[in-house]
Amino acid sequence: MSRYSELESGQLASLLDELMEEYRAAKERKLNLNMSRGVPEKAQLDLSTRLLTAINAASSLSAEDGMDCRNYGALDGIPEARRLMAQMLELEPEQVFVGGNASLSLMHDCLTFAFLHGLPESPKPWAKEEKIKFICPVPGYDRHFAMTEHFGCELIAVPMTLEGPDIGAVTEAVKDPAVKGIWCVPKYSNPQGITYSDAVVRALAALSPAAPDFRIFWDNAYTVHALDMDHQDSLLNIMTALEKLGKQDRVFMFTSTSKVTFPGAGISAVGMSKANLDWFKGHKFYQTIGNDKINQLRHARFLPDMDSVMNHMRKHADIVRPKFQAVLDALAPLGEEGIAQWDVPRGGYFISLNVMPGCAKRVIQLCREAGVTLTPAGSTHPYGIDPEDKNIRIAPTSPPIEELHQAADLLCLCVRIASAEKLGGAAALAPAQVAYGDRN
Amino acid sequence: MSRYSELESGQLASLLDELMEEYRAAKERKLNLNMSRGVPEKAQLDLSTRLLTAINAASSLSAEDGMDCRNYGALDGIPEARRLMAQMLELEPEQVFVGGNASLSLMHDCLTFAFLHGLPESPKPWAKEEKIKFICPVPGYDRHFAMTEHFGCELIAVPMTLEGPDIGAVTEAVKDPAVKGIWCVPKYSNPQGITYSDAVVRALAALSPAAPDFRIFWDNAYTVHALDMDHQDSLLNIMTALEKLGKQDRVFMFTSTSKVTFPGAGISAVGMSKANLDWFKGHKFYQTIGNDKINQLRHARFLPDMDSVMNHMRKHADIVRPKFQAVLDALAPLGEEGIAQWDVPRGGYFISLNVMPGCAKRVIQLCREAGVTLTPAGSTHPYGIDPEDKNIRIAPTSPPIEELHQAADLLCLCVRIASAEKLGGAAALAPAQVAYGDRN
Repeated sequence: MSRYSELESGQLASLLDELMEEYRAAKERKLNLNMSRGVPEKAQLDLSTRLLTAINAASSLSAEDGMDCRNYGALDGIPEARRLMAQMLELEPEQVFVGGNASLSLMHDCLTFAFLHGLPESPKPWAKEEKIKFICPVPGYDRHFAMTEHFGCELIAVPMTLEGPDIGAVTEAVKDPAVKGIWCVPKYSNPQGITYSDAVVRALAALSPAAPDFRIFWDNAYTVHALDMDHQDSLLNIMTALEKLGKQDRVFMFTSTSKVTFPGAGISAVGMSKANLDWFKGHKFYQTIGNDKINQLRHARFLPDMDSVMNHMRKHADIVRPKFQAVLDALAPLGEEGIAQWDVPRGGYFISLNVMPGCAKRVIQLCREAGVTLTPAGSTHPYGIDPEDKNIRIAPTSPPIEELHQAADLLCLCVRIASAEKLGGAAALAPAQVAYGDRN
Repeated sequence: MSRYSELESGQLASLLDELMEEYRAAKERKLNLNMSRGVPEKAQLDLSTRLLTAINAASSLSAEDGMDCRNYGALDGIPEARRLMAQMLELEPEQVFVGGNASLSLMHDCLTFAFLHGLPESPKPWAKEEKIKFICPVPGYDRHFAMTEHFGCELIAVPMTLEGPDIGAVTEAVKDPAVKGIWCVPKYSNPQGITYSDAVVRALAALSPAAPDFRIFWDNAYTVHALDMDHQDSLLNIMTALEKLGKQDRVFMFTSTSKVTFPGAGISAVGMSKANLDWFKGHKFYQTIGNDKINQLRHARFLPDMDSVMNHMRKHADIVRPKFQAVLDALAPLGEEGIAQWDVPRGGYFISLNVMPGCAKRVIQLCREAGVTLTPAGSTHPYGIDPEDKNIRIAPTSPPIEELHQAADLLCLCVRIASAEKLGGAAALAPAQVAYGDRN
């Protein structure tokens, strides 16, 4: 197939006819497939079956410090769970607070305490400020953006490069004292699956924001989620970089076992400098006497060290990798046809697909009407609005591989249809400018 | 022993000498006992050992609606857990949101969302109001009071009667539009162990507060925690009472399994009208994808219905009841001596002891110096300040019974010392007025 942009209008019209015929046939298969959320499949959940019995009637229910995990106490978590999560965050256990099932809740806590009480360096609680702004590298994680939007923040989009957020744009943005934070998914990012370069991490650490209480929300959700465990990305430790600069209070680091053990019954953690942790615990004290310690114990016994975590993640990767490959294989011709562009993810849960500007909503609509659910258009952007209407987040992990092939084929068909429609309509104008070049 | 208030100053002085000798001997025993927090003892935790294996490798991990509890989803909880917690709250499952380990966190959520966003009827978010006030029936639960204090609320103390909060004082307080809520522990209250009368529940339901967004925080933490399961208190269902008046949005109802199964690994719940639950979930959505569903499943299978809950609580009562009796037996002579007063608790985790005004701190200090830890004086009052310095909250459940006898005896000794000191110093003034009458 030649590049769509080189087709004449007559060729485009007949191509569209063919594609629509294929689409009608696809619709009759009445698919019901979902590539919308980064959800592990059953076989991945089965990898952690032993977690369910890691604590049983014969188990000691005491933490390493002797505390009975069944009873009250241990606001910041039991020692072995703090150690496990500290290893995942590459911090010391003393820097880590272990939470409940959702790291999202720990991020929400940080914002809640900042809004209601202010951070240690805040002139006043954020809720008393005229306006709070948050930097959102795009494409990014919809739930991050939605959370800060819900807190009433103005969201500032900065573009992602292949090395992380565009540092020039970030540096410019933090000159505004109303800009109080930035969302980062630094390793195997959501949705691109790339890892921030050392230069970007160092530049983020070296920022001199106008706001004294600026925070980097460093969501290391996919830290151990390589697709190829033999060729893992390395991420510079931002806490170490900050400590060297005496700026260790600048970051909140999050992770969880959601996609290690069970999304529905995991443990989470936030890592911080001592000053930040004192602040966090000072507010957390009023919210809970402590999180589920038996589940912490269960996790620490199931995954006693990083070797066991890595062995476990290798099994995840073996299940997930072929699924990514299936989608990437299906997408490949779209690149040759000049109608889509994507970055090859090295880990994480997503493929970030860019179709021709103005086509994302149409592709997602076509897919939906033929029984394939994708994340709504714009989800990867602040306010759910993708100004170019081109980004589609693909989540390949949930469907079984045979269904995934069907879903990916349908997606490609819909991309072709939307592109042909677009170029057909735009043919009289300047087709070359709305099609993609060679970068894939 | 005659009443202390009838002793002459010479008699008081020699009594104090005797008591201090006894106290010095007690100190030499180097006790290390704790009656400060409402914490179950090990034998109570052992009652729920089967909970640990209620889910095992052979278990179905699907909720009743087919959802895989290991994966994402079910923001408001799985059906069987909502049903269990609804039964504890005497609500419909549709009215219940199941949370994580701590109901305290659900209360904190309600306040957070009210402060940041406002309740459905709020003119503006509470954080934007000049002043928010909360009614605190005293004596009451220190963590309740501390939470609202931490949110910046002004705490309005109203006295508890033996039927619940003084309704006259509450009615007067809610005339102030800044008064937005009241804390209630309606059954086996903390710390008195009494249950609100039907008249008080009806009067609370019938309140017409000036604030349109006034809420009753109804913490039914001890709903199934009778000391004598054959003679349980009955509590009028406030939701039913409110519904009859069309005021069903007035209440947030909380409970948990903290003192049913494990304080360190339980589940919690909040019950609300549909309008409130829509509001709550609308905000909760940004905080979590869902709480630990495997632990919900574990609880629902361990305690499939209220019969099983009640059978289980009977075993708790059998362990706890003798401990309460031991303390009450030790206290009895203090009543005859006219130096202390208490209400006999019918359930819950505490005994609320009133010593002579001005003596609580001194009693607690004397106990501490002899190795018995009590809740700090003032804990049962807003801001931790008991204006009369007379209330002491005793938590008899944690120590083994033989230690409890020692601790209770020491407590009584310290009450006698503090009383004799007080009356000795006050003897020249008006001793009768600072001593208690016969009400016990």
